[in-house]
Amino acid sequence: MTTPLQLQSLVADRWIGAAPKQALRSAINGRVVAHTHDEALDFAEMVAHARGPGLKNLLATHFQDRARVLKALAVFLMERKEQLYAISAHTGATRSDSWIDVEGGIGTLFAYASIGGKDLPSSNVLHEGPPMRLGAENHFIGSHVLVPRRGIALHINAFNFPIWGMLEKFAPSFLAGMPCLVKPASATSYVAVEAVRLMMDSGLLPAGCLQLIVGGTGDLFERLEEPDVVTFTGSADTAMSLRSHPNVLRRSIPFNAEADSLNCAILAPDVTADDPEFELFVKEVAREMTAKAGQKCTAIRRVIVPRKLIGAVGAALKARLAKVTVGDPALEGIRMGALASHAQQADVAEKVALLAEGNMMLLDGNKGFAPKGEGTDQGAFFAPTLLMCPKPLANERVHSVEAFGPVSTLMPYDDFDEGLHLATLGRGSLVGTLATKTPALAAHAVPTFAAWHGRLLVLDREAAMESTGHGSPLPKLKHGGPGRAGGGEELGGLRSVKHFLQRCAVQGSPTMLSAVTGEYQRGGAVTESDIHPFRRHFEDVEVGMSLLTHRRTVSEADIVNFGGLSGDYFYMHFDDVAAKQSAFGQRIAHGYFVLSAAAGLFVSPAPGPVLANYGLENLRFVTPVAIGDTIQARLTAKRKIDRPPRDDQPAQGVIGWDVAVTNQRGELCASYEILTLVAKRNAG
Amino acid sequence: MTTPLQLQSLVADRWIGAAPKQALRSAINGRVVAHTHDEALDFAEMVAHARGPGLKNLLATHFQDRARVLKALAVFLMERKEQLYAISAHTGATRSDSWIDVEGGIGTLFAYASIGGKDLPSSNVLHEGPPMRLGAENHFIGSHVLVPRRGIALHINAFNFPIWGMLEKFAPSFLAGMPCLVKPASATSYVAVEAVRLMMDSGLLPAGCLQLIVGGTGDLFERLEEPDVVTFTGSADTAMSLRSHPNVLRRSIPFNAEADSLNCAILAPDVTADDPEFELFVKEVAREMTAKAGQKCTAIRRVIVPRKLIGAVGAALKARLAKVTVGDPALEGIRMGALASHAQQADVAEKVALLAEGNMMLLDGNKGFAPKGEGTDQGAFFAPTLLMCPKPLANERVHSVEAFGPVSTLMPYDDFDEGLHLATLGRGSLVGTLATKTPALAAHAVPTFAAWHGRLLVLDREAAMESTGHGSPLPKLKHGGPGRAGGGEELGGLRSVKHFLQRCAVQGSPTMLSAVTGEYQRGGAVTESDIHPFRRHFEDVEVGMSLLTHRRTVSEADIVNFGGLSGDYFYMHFDDVAAKQSAFGQRIAHGYFVLSAAAGLFVSPAPGPVLANYGLENLRFVTPVAIGDTIQARLTAKRKIDRPPRDDQPAQGVIGWDVAVTNQRGELCASYEILTLVAKRNAG
Repeated sequence: MTTPLQLQSLVADRWIGAAPKQALRSAINGRVVAHTHDEALDFAEMVAHARGPGLKNLLATHFQDRARVLKALAVFLMERKEQLYAISAHTGATRSDSWIDVEGGIGTLFAYASIGGKDLPSSNVLHEGPPMRLGAENHFIGSHVLVPRRGIALHINAFNFPIWGMLEKFAPSFLAGMPCLVKPASATSYVAVEAVRLMMDSGLLPAGCLQLIVGGTGDLFERLEEPDVVTFTGSADTAMSLRSHPNVLRRSIPFNAEADSLNCAILAPDVTADDPEFELFVKEVAREMTAKAGQKCTAIRRVIVPRKLIGAVGAALKARLAKVTVGDPALEGIRMGALASHAQQADVAEKVALLAEGNMMLLDGNKGFAPKGEGTDQGAFFAPTLLMCPKPLANERVHSVEAFGPVSTLMPYDDFDEGLHLATLGRGSLVGTLATKTPALAAHAVPTFAAWHGRLLVLDREAAMESTGHGSPLPKLKHGGPGRAGGGEELGGLRSVKHFLQRCAVQGSPTMLSAVTGEYQRGGAVTESDIHPFRRHFEDVEVGMSLLTHRRTVSEADIVNFGGLSGDYFYMHFDDVAAKQSAFGQRIAHGYFVLSAAAGLFVSPAPGPVLANYGLENLRFVTPVAIGDTIQARLTAKRKIDRPPRDDQPAQGVIGWDVAVTNQRGELCASYEILTLVAKRNAG
Repeated sequence: MTTPLQLQSLVADRWIGAAPKQALRSAINGRVVAHTHDEALDFAEMVAHARGPGLKNLLATHFQDRARVLKALAVFLMERKEQLYAISAHTGATRSDSWIDVEGGIGTLFAYASIGGKDLPSSNVLHEGPPMRLGAENHFIGSHVLVPRRGIALHINAFNFPIWGMLEKFAPSFLAGMPCLVKPASATSYVAVEAVRLMMDSGLLPAGCLQLIVGGTGDLFERLEEPDVVTFTGSADTAMSLRSHPNVLRRSIPFNAEADSLNCAILAPDVTADDPEFELFVKEVAREMTAKAGQKCTAIRRVIVPRKLIGAVGAALKARLAKVTVGDPALEGIRMGALASHAQQADVAEKVALLAEGNMMLLDGNKGFAPKGEGTDQGAFFAPTLLMCPKPLANERVHSVEAFGPVSTLMPYDDFDEGLHLATLGRGSLVGTLATKTPALAAHAVPTFAAWHGRLLVLDREAAMESTGHGSPLPKLKHGGPGRAGGGEELGGLRSVKHFLQRCAVQGSPTMLSAVTGEYQRGGAVTESDIHPFRRHFEDVEVGMSLLTHRRTVSEADIVNFGGLSGDYFYMHFDDVAAKQSAFGQRIAHGYFVLSAAAGLFVSPAPGPVLANYGLENLRFVTPVAIGDTIQARLTAKRKIDRPPRDDQPAQGVIGWDVAVTNQRGELCASYEILTLVAKRNAG
């Protein structure tokens, strides 16, 4: 790139910005990469656009629609990922650093597309059961639903992962039906602008559902309202200042913060220098120190090891770090790039100076340090730096001062509980690693460790075969820690979508709650289906359509034959003496016979739209079936889960059927839900 | 009571307070009921006591232990409830008002005892699955655990429900393992003091787990730390001031607020004056206006009805309210008591004056109002008051000014969406009622309504048979609403326990995650049991004990016999032509046959400790079983749930067994968990 980019904000679906303001420089060589714009933004317009057309367009779609959009968007971006890698290089990132940001970000879109497709309904009401009886006769029940909050999401991101940081917030909030306002950190905003430009180019996003702010947030916080949500990643100080905003507090606007923390790795006392776990531990620490030049909110800042091994760990770490070649990642063989800006470089140097007071410098790579590559003397490089704190119980600073670069401090412990206590002195961290080969030690660590951490990686030789590493938040696992780490929760699968929805308890008759939740509730009004419901295609089955089967009297011969066929001769079915002494007082039919006979009652034998019964949930055997009892089943369409079309199978959806098996006295014998795949009308 | 009580605080298990400070007066007749104390409290000592012995004693127990303590405590208090009714009478409450506070509070203890007993483990690590594979070969998996936060809970309560308000916060936090500091509102603190005194008298609570603050909180907020939690019920202004505390914000201390809100009831447009729902609606509104003299955070403040019915609703409400006799609840026939204090009385009068401006006064009971009973002219009475706002879209005040007494405002709407929009103008409410007879209208209302409310009651003739009412938060349903209502969440079953726990994602090998979660994870190391695991008593089964069964080859005869016995002649099992054209390409065995044959493989026929297989979870049929395939099952103890002893059954616990059925190629055919009741060694 020769001419600096002129960055623009995206306001009400228009790109705004022509006058350069702040120059943003390459972390590699200090050349100007881009300029922020000087035009002031009209936040009233942005907010009105989001609340008006943005919300309207989003709520014209449902969860499944939006999951499909996320998938298409992920495919679109993946096809254009090289554009993102190219611009990301200016941030000082190596290819593998950028992989985290670019493909990690796109991967998060894929993950939320899949989570949405699998777990969310084709509506905007998510039922969070189970429903509960609130009266003895089942006239009044309660449950919970989650619905779009009908507000906007303001996402404020950190400089280190301009793409991943944006997409991991965008994906769940978009899925939840919230128009997003995204504000990237200025230092690397040119990467975020490029990503947003591609997202808009895709033509996949409904108008108004995404806007971008290059520069400050002006009076935006004053304009937030009760249904809105703010998410924030960055420093604890900025988090503090934003979450203190009176408008946020007064209106109870959820503020989800993820702040940098002094994450640790602990080597458990069972590991010897000869164990594979020792080597794995050293490798993990070195990787976390140098990946993204240590600019990860999850990076390992504190390395907590048994006193007897501190020398060995220190030597092994130094040896590994010494082999890390630092310079312009465009060159062959470079393993670590630059910090994101000169400001970061100065800040890290200052923090290292603070940490060095009273501690030993085991590796001070910055003495006479010359990164490889042309112009890198004007870049924002910093060499791997390892300190050793001999008395970590007495040194508050190593647990609270964070150098946001390739910097860690080694510290010894005498017994394991002291090691765990050192971990907690960070006052709340995003993640910690425990390297051990002993399950009991992992179990022992958990109560203390989990109370102060958002995530725990237990590293052993088996996990190492597939480990995704200490530093990688995963879409399905919670990201965010207590206390200093900000107290927020991101990712974690469906949980993060729920953060952008409003949960409401609902109470009423089963018929009303069936309507409200979109799922048939036992006891609610049913529609007796004129044709067998299994002979209807997916589109033609409505929740509440029901079949009351013919009856069947269960005989001793059934029990005998079922035992012979299954091999299940449990005394309750076959030993009249013992059965009489049991709680039931008599021989009873096998539970699985009741299940099988119920299937015999409601199955529709000829080929039809119901392709398979692939699973069963919440089976409870309630009243036992005795010899001579007559059973009957009621089968009712409980819920429908639409499935996006796939090339490798006929168009289909999932239908869950409520099954209640009763006896001649109307008592419930067995209760469960069966899951079936049901073909759509036009399926092959 | 003749001599005023001298209230005391409970500090580090000592009662403190001898010097009277503020006089607290009877709401009925103005006589002094109690004095707060003048002694300053040592908050440093309170906090140290909670963090030291309190936490230690609590964490020496586990979830199941604490559930049992809650139950015993509930029994103890219920036996002494009349003491609580007696003192509660001074607050102006009728017997049925006090029932909400006294028995509602004790009932919440019972409910959390039951929730804990049913859903929590006999440890301090709660596994929140499902676990997820993070690698293709199952060497690395992830899940979530929740553990006690190892901090203290500060509960700040409102004046209206001094017992219920305290116990609904105490129960889930105690269950979660948090020492509690309770601060009741001064006006009715004499009731809370009495309740705490009884709780301590029970001798059931571990030392340090409960302390009580009569008076202000001094420097307590400065002393809070990262693992602590603050809960608050009261006014929006106080919530704002407490949640703004820099120490709370800086340390990311969770602050759960529940504030008063302008709750509404909506009469849907389908209801005519002749429908039972009309009468039910009027009755509900009148009851909510007068119960606890309207001093409920859930009371109905806005009555939203179709314009055509506003006259009818107004007349019916006036008629009902006119019949409410107000006075000293000690007298026969009194239906409504006093407000809690003269300060409340003055505040309500002031708010009514504000609301009256520009609105019609339909019922102004306070003109010439004389409550019945001796000395009641010195009490804090306020008569039922009904206003009518003719233009509610143009009147901001009726949606934001709350008179916290027996006061509501009637308002008309023209179409249903306008009615729903009026509901949202409260900017976030705890609860709303929708009276309708049409399920489709309830479903239509939900997206808007649920976005702005914490709870929704759909009232119809069926629900009315068992309805617990608009104003009653229930332990199993969420209590708390967005925006003005404070944005918090209380109750809601296990959810509120989780608010006092810390969630941590855990990653590692299946063996490590089995140790960490306390539940066997598929792929983790198992212990081959020397004797059949079904022949072990509850105490002797360890998680991970496993049985690999003998094998069985599935033949065509099995399928034929199973079809004959069950009556299930689905084409996939019996129609060679259609089966060949299907996705599976051949006839396959019934899924329920595989399930039954697996039981035949692992069952232990003679009477033994396994009493019954009462349920089954998460059944998935993965690879179909074809004719000639040979299946085998692995049965592994997955999790143990201890059960408190009951008089009506032998001592027993629940064991969940992981079952994996595989074929001769090692492919997974069926996967599920069976739930069994297992006797303890000493069982009958």
